[in-house]
Amino acid sequence: MADEVKLFGVWASPYSRRVEVALKLKGVKYEFIEEDLSNKSDLLLKYNPVHKKIPVLLHNGKPIVESLVILEYIDETWKGNPILPHDPYQKAVARFWAKFLDEKCFPALRKAFSSKEDEQEKAIEEASELLKILENELNGKKFFGGDKIGLVDIVANFIGFWLGVIQEAKGEELLLTHKKFPILCKWIDEYVNCSVIKENLPCQR
Amino acid sequence: MADEVKLFGVWASPYSRRVEVALKLKGVKYEFIEEDLSNKSDLLLKYNPVHKKIPVLLHNGKPIVESLVILEYIDETWKGNPILPHDPYQKAVARFWAKFLDEKCFPALRKAFSSKEDEQEKAIEEASELLKILENELNGKKFFGGDKIGLVDIVANFIGFWLGVIQEAKGEELLLTHKKFPILCKWIDEYVNCSVIKENLPCQR
Repeated sequence: MADEVKLFGVWASPYSRRVEVALKLKGVKYEFIEEDLSNKSDLLLKYNPVHKKIPVLLHNGKPIVESLVILEYIDETWKGNPILPHDPYQKAVARFWAKFLDEKCFPALRKAFSSKEDEQEKAIEEASELLKILENELNGKKFFGGDKIGLVDIVANFIGFWLGVIQEAKGEELLLTHKKFPILCKWIDEYVNCSVIKENLPCQR
Repeated sequence: MADEVKLFGVWASPYSRRVEVALKLKGVKYEFIEEDLSNKSDLLLKYNPVHKKIPVLLHNGKPIVESLVILEYIDETWKGNPILPHDPYQKAVARFWAKFLDEKCFPALRKAFSSKEDEQEKAIEEASELLKILENELNGKKFFGGDKIGLVDIVANFIGFWLGVIQEAKGEELLLTHKKFPILCKWIDEYVNCSVIKENLPCQR
């Protein structure tokens, strides 16, 4: 039986996009089902009754939920082009950074962009501290995953693309400048110019 | 070379205790190093410079950080007595519930126990909604992992032990009653009476 793979997502969501990038890296064909978050479909509510959120991957009728969980599932199900390292220690390191991005960096970046003026300076400073940690981690490497894109790069797509778009939309270089974060900015260039990413940037739809 | 395994933790912490339970289930010998969180050791700061938190597992000199990441590392490094299912889909389901416990249930339970009186009722209601979801998930099973303790049971140790202690200390049955949550309460009995758990409850130290 051929695999039936469906992805319930939202084209502009970095969380959906992670899953799409992983599926494309693996060469897995899938149907993308665009959700309207203001009027969620019965299928989304059926397949993710706990969180009622995208993305949901449906593989041969079985739902997998939460983008990090989905990425691990994809890597374990389709073995070619591994996303996670094989070695348990290196795998733990990748999982650590993926968690750090989701639990620390993204909330801090969101706060930095949405805070009121009087709180924004402090929020930007806090987010900068976290970006500095990422900058150090990247030092000497092309990608977080080494020579090629891996789990952490896929999870960091928010920094690799969305952050630049938000900064541009706001008309100012608020946070992520070449001067302050040369290594992260170089990584962004490498990331968005990598073919599988380039073909799947949100602006391509 | 024999494995050198050290665990930097705090005996009363459910996060350290998860790691201890996993090591004991696997039969891995380890040295436990009790940290004083008000005066963290240089070694803890060296091995976990990002979060500066326990638990840290040190395996042959390599640090692994974040309890969920450590549990996966332990399962991949010492193969006997698996904690996670082998099947990728079942593994994804276990990871989903572990994340649900850490990201939804524990913050809600903490809030329910620490809220001021006027906010407590709402906080208890919210935590109860999440416990109901767990109650449904457990229905028909002895453990979250099926017939034996697995990842989700180990992660749920907060409910299995700490919640009862806190309720008792407060002198009232606030949240987790047999009447409201018969299946979860039965699970707690099974959990704390399981030999590896029983021998490692915090009160045994």
